[in-house]
Amino acid sequence: MTTETPTPAEPAAPERPDDHHDYVHGYSQTEAQRLGDQADTLAELLHAGTAYPAGSRVLEAGCGVGAQTVHLLAANPGIRLTAADLSAESLQRARARVAAQAPAADVTWHHGDLHRLPFPDASFDHVFLCFVLEHLPDPVAGLAALRRVLRPGGTITVIEGDHGSAFFHPEGPAARRTIDHLVRLQALAGGDGLIGRRLHPLLTAAGFARVSVRPRTVYADGARPALVEGFTLRTFVAMVESVRAEALAAGLTTPEDFDRGITELRRAAGPGGTFHYAFFEAVAVRPRS
Amino acid sequence: MTTETPTPAEPAAPERPDDHHDYVHGYSQTEAQRLGDQADTLAELLHAGTAYPAGSRVLEAGCGVGAQTVHLLAANPGIRLTAADLSAESLQRARARVAAQAPAADVTWHHGDLHRLPFPDASFDHVFLCFVLEHLPDPVAGLAALRRVLRPGGTITVIEGDHGSAFFHPEGPAARRTIDHLVRLQALAGGDGLIGRRLHPLLTAAGFARVSVRPRTVYADGARPALVEGFTLRTFVAMVESVRAEALAAGLTTPEDFDRGITELRRAAGPGGTFHYAFFEAVAVRPRS
Repeated sequence: MTTETPTPAEPAAPERPDDHHDYVHGYSQTEAQRLGDQADTLAELLHAGTAYPAGSRVLEAGCGVGAQTVHLLAANPGIRLTAADLSAESLQRARARVAAQAPAADVTWHHGDLHRLPFPDASFDHVFLCFVLEHLPDPVAGLAALRRVLRPGGTITVIEGDHGSAFFHPEGPAARRTIDHLVRLQALAGGDGLIGRRLHPLLTAAGFARVSVRPRTVYADGARPALVEGFTLRTFVAMVESVRAEALAAGLTTPEDFDRGITELRRAAGPGGTFHYAFFEAVAVRPRS
Repeated sequence: MTTETPTPAEPAAPERPDDHHDYVHGYSQTEAQRLGDQADTLAELLHAGTAYPAGSRVLEAGCGVGAQTVHLLAANPGIRLTAADLSAESLQRARARVAAQAPAADVTWHHGDLHRLPFPDASFDHVFLCFVLEHLPDPVAGLAALRRVLRPGGTITVIEGDHGSAFFHPEGPAARRTIDHLVRLQALAGGDGLIGRRLHPLLTAAGFARVSVRPRTVYADGARPALVEGFTLRTFVAMVESVRAEALAAGLTTPEDFDRGITELRRAAGPGGTFHYAFFEAVAVRPRS
């Protein structure tokens, strides 16, 4: 598992552009770095279930800064990828990342909303989305829109986290409150940080068939220092830390309590500490009828 | 995964004998049935990491009613098993179960406390314990006592749950309170229902080496009706239900609130429901020096 892969240099970006206020983690360069670290650490875990034949027409809906895109391309050589995102700025970063790490890949970039993609029905053999559904106010509507552009018999792969799966040793009340703030902020923004557990009913409600969901668990303790560093600290704690300003602005916490929560969380990465988190991977099929 | 294996007929037992008041789930026949269902459903998951060569001297510490014993014997033919438990009554049930399901097995039964086993140092090649540590007031002392009877280079396998790993859809506040009562009762009895996450530091503190812990996750949704029945309902909900009288007696809840919690929990086994739980399996070695 790679934890130290450097991400390509990327242009600085304003902290929170007005047109993207619903993305709870913000759009800073630190955030892009965090997403890169997270994707590199988790690549093996999250992409293990995805194998698309060369020549497949694949849509990545909500590619963001390309953190998963480069892994999707590395794991599936020869695919014809369309990568779409709502943010022109994220898309620009994704292009730079792919140009640096997979310059020969066949990628079409699309700036637009996954609910209103301009592609004809059944344009794709496979649809892939990772850490996208958690941000949508109506995930069933989003999935149904993606079903339209998927060919009958084609598959959709959905990967999401679930912050309710985070537990650790030693526990701490401030740490728990801090995670709750993250979930609360995501709810206030119209999303759901506990969406992993809902993938089966959501995909079923959106008209998909043969819905198969598997937890993809990360567990880190003293026997796995690289995972403690790459996941507990640089992925999970970093994600919680990334909402500090927003949690304070929303009046959910004080600087002292938030920072106490981070200090408590970090003990899970210290001597004798352990950390558990579950992602969920769903694969489903667009019915032929 | 077997979910319907009938358990052998067993004598009725008083609800809570005075000498066993620290076993939070009680000793009723319903409880013995629940333990049998649980072990059968989970056998594949929990015993996948255990493979002892024929002829190995294996100690099962805290065999209880033999729910795991029969699976241990089935998965490891030819072992020379010593099964120990604090409760003479549980041991009697375990003997009946093994006589019915593994009549040819080489088993020595020992009635006694795992902290004070009368065996010489290094008597065993392997030690196995499942759902035992969660009940001990001082799990490090228990593990250290077991280390003594394990030969240098021999392995210990420890399997425990962690009720903090339970999350489900739909969530419900009464369901969450009801699970919390179970954890609270176990703490009041000197145990820890959140012990799974602590296995690595506990085994390390008890002087074991090469401690390796893996989560063993159960996730059940509408695509897996046998697991919904066998695990969500007959293992987890049944376990929570088993502490109803005790939770009421301790003044933790009202009958209405407890029953509302069970009703909410059961929705995770209904249409569109999902359920997640993580067991932890640790394997460690007694150092040679």
